[in-house]
Amino acid sequence: MQTLETLAQAIDGEFIGNAQQMIRQVAHPTVAKSAEDLALVLDKEILGALAQLNIQTALVPADLDVTGIPNQIKVKRPKVALAKLLDIFDKPVYIPPGVHATAVIDKTAVIASDVVIGPFCVVGPNTVIGAQTRLVSHVHVGADVQIGEQGLFYPGTVIGDRIRIGNRVILQANTSIGSDGFSYVTEEAGNVESARSSGDIKAQNSRILRINSIGTVVLEDDVEVGANACIDRATLGETRIGRGTKLDNQVQIAHNVTIGENCMIVSQVGIAGSVTIGDRVVIAGQAGIKDHISIGDDSIILPKTGVSGDVPPKVIYMGFQGMPRKDFLRREMKIGQLSSLPEKLSQLAERIEALEEQSV
Amino acid sequence: MQTLETLAQAIDGEFIGNAQQMIRQVAHPTVAKSAEDLALVLDKEILGALAQLNIQTALVPADLDVTGIPNQIKVKRPKVALAKLLDIFDKPVYIPPGVHATAVIDKTAVIASDVVIGPFCVVGPNTVIGAQTRLVSHVHVGADVQIGEQGLFYPGTVIGDRIRIGNRVILQANTSIGSDGFSYVTEEAGNVESARSSGDIKAQNSRILRINSIGTVVLEDDVEVGANACIDRATLGETRIGRGTKLDNQVQIAHNVTIGENCMIVSQVGIAGSVTIGDRVVIAGQAGIKDHISIGDDSIILPKTGVSGDVPPKVIYMGFQGMPRKDFLRREMKIGQLSSLPEKLSQLAERIEALEEQSV
Amino acid sequence: MQTLETLAQAIDGEFIGNAQQMIRQVAHPTVAKSAEDLALVLDKEILGALAQLNIQTALVPADLDVTGIPNQIKVKRPKVALAKLLDIFDKPVYIPPGVHATAVIDKTAVIASDVVIGPFCVVGPNTVIGAQTRLVSHVHVGADVQIGEQGLFYPGTVIGDRIRIGNRVILQANTSIGSDGFSYVTEEAGNVESARSSGDIKAQNSRILRINSIGTVVLEDDVEVGANACIDRATLGETRIGRGTKLDNQVQIAHNVTIGENCMIVSQVGIAGSVTIGDRVVIAGQAGIKDHISIGDDSIILPKTGVSGDVPPKVIYMGFQGMPRKDFLRREMKIGQLSSLPEKLSQLAERIEALEEQSV
Repeated sequence: MQTLETLAQAIDGEFIGNAQQMIRQVAHPTVAKSAEDLALVLDKEILGALAQLNIQTALVPADLDVTGIPNQIKVKRPKVALAKLLDIFDKPVYIPPGVHATAVIDKTAVIASDVVIGPFCVVGPNTVIGAQTRLVSHVHVGADVQIGEQGLFYPGTVIGDRIRIGNRVILQANTSIGSDGFSYVTEEAGNVESARSSGDIKAQNSRILRINSIGTVVLEDDVEVGANACIDRATLGETRIGRGTKLDNQVQIAHNVTIGENCMIVSQVGIAGSVTIGDRVVIAGQAGIKDHISIGDDSIILPKTGVSGDVPPKVIYMGFQGMPRKDFLRREMKIGQLSSLPEKLSQLAERIEALEEQSV
Repeated sequence: MQTLETLAQAIDGEFIGNAQQMIRQVAHPTVAKSAEDLALVLDKEILGALAQLNIQTALVPADLDVTGIPNQIKVKRPKVALAKLLDIFDKPVYIPPGVHATAVIDKTAVIASDVVIGPFCVVGPNTVIGAQTRLVSHVHVGADVQIGEQGLFYPGTVIGDRIRIGNRVILQANTSIGSDGFSYVTEEAGNVESARSSGDIKAQNSRILRINSIGTVVLEDDVEVGANACIDRATLGETRIGRGTKLDNQVQIAHNVTIGENCMIVSQVGIAGSVTIGDRVVIAGQAGIKDHISIGDDSIILPKTGVSGDVPPKVIYMGFQGMPRKDFLRREMKIGQLSSLPEKLSQLAERIEALEEQSV
Repeated sequence: MQTLETLAQAIDGEFIGNAQQMIRQVAHPTVAKSAEDLALVLDKEILGALAQLNIQTALVPADLDVTGIPNQIKVKRPKVALAKLLDIFDKPVYIPPGVHATAVIDKTAVIASDVVIGPFCVVGPNTVIGAQTRLVSHVHVGADVQIGEQGLFYPGTVIGDRIRIGNRVILQANTSIGSDGFSYVTEEAGNVESARSSGDIKAQNSRILRINSIGTVVLEDDVEVGANACIDRATLGETRIGRGTKLDNQVQIAHNVTIGENCMIVSQVGIAGSVTIGDRVVIAGQAGIKDHISIGDDSIILPKTGVSGDVPPKVIYMGFQGMPRKDFLRREMKIGQLSSLPEKLSQLAERIEALEEQSV
């Protein structure tokens, strides 16, 4: 519990009302019941509904004049304030303290102080885990792994041998880090090579040979990976996810991919082998990136887009056959215009017929 | 083993032939070998093939006159009868009885009678598990979780802290219930906000701040969740899946989503944050629903559809840029018609040329 | 460590230079630092960059004349040679030798010699595991399962009861083999059946009945399955993946599917119930196959394609509404041509106007 005044200070806001009002929790306006509940009024859309609710305390955008709520914290960027509030009112995951008796930790592993390791975790030989990192339960950490400080790995996380993980990395449940790349070759040129060179299928896949992945995965500081997401290890070198980049649930990152810093990759995106992605790129849900493509800094790939060519920096890309949004909209507009053509054509035909009759 | 007569009664059917014929198993017609195998003749498509097979006993649609099979059970709705038959002939998953010696169960957890907990399961403090619920193995149940009766949770299931689960809920292998929502904000307005307001990318994502998910997930009675599916917890309140709704493998449900009752969400569907879905909605494989969309009761979203606007009740939706099926088909028809235009245009041009030559 | 000469022999290549040169590792040309590093020069694209690098030893395509590198192994098909090299220089996953003390193995299970079972694995009753198969950790193997020789199952793998697995099968982390099929029926005809028969939604889904999956899954020899992939068991018979077929991460295979030999199914592909796929088929990432479809031998389905009709053998298929590539390209060309029509139409209109003015 904090007072209105101290909470306002903590989130860089200004308060109105009773400085000593205690705040117990953050709540949606429809759920806020007492003056101890800080109701979130994040934008003006909710203003109409406020009259019906008896809200006593609220977080309010600084540029919005909200009447009838006695206690307010006014902030410039409400979602940033929300991030700070939910840091203060966080409900951290439960793990029994210390290293659980059931955990199997190789005697050559180096576990820093204040590391928390829950039931049924495995830590392999020569692995290093930094201070205050937490493994919830059923986490597999292979051999020769390096893990930084303050990591948080949820149940079912699998971290393969030789993976390198920075500080403050969060891996949600059932993520697979360091699975083998999907890399094969046929003894003779097969149907895909035939299709690429001739446009037709003239060859058959003979026996499929496996190309082992002996490389690794590097997750830099502050990377987060969603539940059931997969990141394959590189064939020789490393698959790398840059500092601060966030991957959502069920994202698939293939072997040899490099992703820059502060990217956001939304759920069910698939990124094929050897793709290079710049900094601050946003890729929306279910988009797919073809192998060996590069995507420039600050670009945005819209949902479900199929990217099969390089994307320059600062471009918005979209479409089943991915293209810049401007081109996509122009194409759609043209298709829309075309729908009036059959009628226009009939009108012209009538005028020609009239002329033809005259000329006879 | 049951007799033809008792089995017919159990599935609301009528029998023909030897009432005392024992039935050992249900089988595809091509596999049925003896009179003890009940061959499934679910529709008339298979009738042609029956002559080659020596089938003695069969399940048959009531409106189909099947000759040459001495023992028959005639039913009105064969797939409903199949559901009942496979309930009778079910092969339940093997779990060693009782609570396994290796399970780690907090001493404050409340485990009802006849609960079965397999090897390497974890149950956190203050968690309540209802009667006859079964945890196969490697199941993680966090702290303060409420689980109803007769649940069945397969290996690798992860159920986070504070989740609430009703009765008869089935979670397939490696599901993640209660992972954190993919919710972030940049300190200053970033490229996505820039693209939304101006259509161009004029700003860069500065440092990405995490918005913690302190809410929960509620799975109502009779919900089923497929293997490797993910359901994120809400930011503040709850992500809710309504009574009787079924989710297939690898479905992704983001934070704050509400799904109604008796929906069917097929494999690899992605539902973004704060979406609201009505009752009895069917969403086919690989469809994607944009955040904050609402979908009305009884609607059907066809496979791979991208839904980026609200869908009214009882509408069939389809297309990369999702729209009502009627509009989609009209658009396709128009594009089809257009393909004859270049030729028609050439013909008109020829006629104009003729007129022009005459007029000279 | 091997000499240049023995290594060249092992990968069917011919060497140039110092036969006794020791090779320590395989490396990307930009990383190769000493004569003991075998740099990969897989194609001519890299030749330009070689001048800047001081490479002493390299793998080189036989048809490429590379100067300035003293030690070379020349091979006909460099990617095949790479597969052989990475077999020689493989870094196999770490598992403590033998059967780990924590593993829970039913006393009726039959474990062959040289099987390695890591921490927290479960093996159910009557299950058979062949020689030299390795379970890394947290692997669940149910009851009555048959597993061949030299298998490798990564952490979090779930193998349900009665599954049959051949020799040399690899399952990556968090795969789910033998989850229940997504198979339900409504007591009365529901909205999907209404939409199929009438094109409109006139009925509601009544209560949803579960159709249990009492069948199994068969993985033939040399099958590999990617991380977090799912293969559902059949309703009655078996879901079958043919010899040598490879599935990438997050692939979804529904109940009753049959896939032939030596297919490659890329990441995030979804294959719905009762689909039949021939031999040597390649399905690229995020494609989806409708239920009950059949796909012929040697065909290629391009990324993101939606397949809703049967595909003949040796066809390249593509498009949101999947069709042969030739048809797709023709359709796109026609849409492209159409964009010039409005202008042509205006020109014709002007000529008609001129004629009309003359004829007055």
